[in-house]
Amino acid sequence: MDNRPIGVFDSGLGGLTAVKPLHRILPHENIIYFGDTGRVPYGSRGADVIRQYAEQDARFLLSHDVKFVLAACGTVSTVATHLADLLPVPYANVLQPTALAAVRATKNRRIGVIGTAATIRSGAFEREIHRIDPTMQVTSQACPLFVPLVESGFIDPNDSVPIEVARRYLAPILAQGVDTLILGCTHYPILKRIIGPLVGDDVILIDSGRESARHCAALLAKNGLLSDRETEGEERFFVSDRTDDFTSVAGIFLGNEATSLEAELVQIEDY
Amino acid sequence: MDNRPIGVFDSGLGGLTAVKPLHRILPHENIIYFGDTGRVPYGSRGADVIRQYAEQDARFLLSHDVKFVLAACGTVSTVATHLADLLPVPYANVLQPTALAAVRATKNRRIGVIGTAATIRSGAFEREIHRIDPTMQVTSQACPLFVPLVESGFIDPNDSVPIEVARRYLAPILAQGVDTLILGCTHYPILKRIIGPLVGDDVILIDSGRESARHCAALLAKNGLLSDRETEGEERFFVSDRTDDFTSVAGIFLGNEATSLEAELVQIEDY
Repeated sequence: MDNRPIGVFDSGLGGLTAVKPLHRILPHENIIYFGDTGRVPYGSRGADVIRQYAEQDARFLLSHDVKFVLAACGTVSTVATHLADLLPVPYANVLQPTALAAVRATKNRRIGVIGTAATIRSGAFEREIHRIDPTMQVTSQACPLFVPLVESGFIDPNDSVPIEVARRYLAPILAQGVDTLILGCTHYPILKRIIGPLVGDDVILIDSGRESARHCAALLAKNGLLSDRETEGEERFFVSDRTDDFTSVAGIFLGNEATSLEAELVQIEDY
Repeated sequence: MDNRPIGVFDSGLGGLTAVKPLHRILPHENIIYFGDTGRVPYGSRGADVIRQYAEQDARFLLSHDVKFVLAACGTVSTVATHLADLLPVPYANVLQPTALAAVRATKNRRIGVIGTAATIRSGAFEREIHRIDPTMQVTSQACPLFVPLVESGFIDPNDSVPIEVARRYLAPILAQGVDTLILGCTHYPILKRIIGPLVGDDVILIDSGRESARHCAALLAKNGLLSDRETEGEERFFVSDRTDDFTSVAGIFLGNEATSLEAELVQIEDY
């Protein structure tokens, strides 16, 4: 039993797509969220910069005495793979649970992966899938404009702009006949109603935010780290820039739960 | 006479659209360019973060003993307006020369301004135009997806995606009947062949990179700071991330001059 908070971080607010299911599965847990909105996006950056940023993000969460760190960020999960060894508390990210969910879901053994440029360049999803089952056929595609589309509000499922961008990115993956598609960036579930119709009902979408939340809950239970609190847990949100429009942007990721959220400002370079 | 280099910086590589005309006007000058590719884009960030980044960028250039600093970045020029007072060398940015060029160009006294979210939020172009001539009618529009479109390679003048995005952003400006449009971000000239046909031949496009290069050259001459070198000047390029694909990305901004450019890596947080 451990009543300290769970720490969750992301390059921006995409990681909130993991906070939402985490709170649903473990409603009595306190959660500390850090979104590095002052340095988003990570996915276009080089590996050294991403690793340095991820260390600072985790150190900030540790300064709030968290019992567990979840990197709810596809780019950090696939590039800053050294993080598990650095932290004094249990750590999880989106890579392993998402790859495992995809291997379990596919019937024709053909899995597609979409993610940021840094994630696809790392080859981490492909390696993790092949570690679980070397016979899987994996097709990967970087989608560098997806995060900016979400952050600039191009998310309407009937909007021709994100539909056309998604159509181009997805074409080479669909040509491989995949029946399972990993949304390898926690921003991408926001585009589910655009990606879904393009890939068709026969392709299963694997949501890295949701899978990592389930995995985090299972690890806490297994390690005896769940809270015995009986009241509802509290969530605190921290960002590194622009607290003033946090509610409206967070609302995109959390849905109508985010009607009156407030975020606190962090000087993340100091960690 | 001063043979020290001219320092030019931008949030990323958009500022190269100022380096190109600067080298054409003053071919004997050495130029030090810094592109903050590790922290691009600035335009979606809050004012405090932008000011802090701009100070570090300028300090890096000063560490190379530059005789002049040019902020070839629309966001820095409109948000980090304190920079002129901080620097020990003459300083220029895109704001004043671009606003002046627009006021001189317009015939119907209606000027449009497009820029990043931070630039438009600052209201700086509108204030500067009204300082020159209070009777001008100014219409402004933030175009937050333009920088990501350029950086993700959506720049083909026949591509329906950037055309549709530009059509939406430009519609409210065109509805005001402007005859002059300020491209208030040094990335935007890359989209000239998309923006041009949408606004039509009767609308003059003002290129903030080119105008600031002309202004910089004029200030150097006026202050007796030109080099007396008779050989061609040298250009050195520094970035804060991803030196490996510098040549290909720089080529977008410099054209075919950039066939074999190399960039050196800077830890900009240390400045």
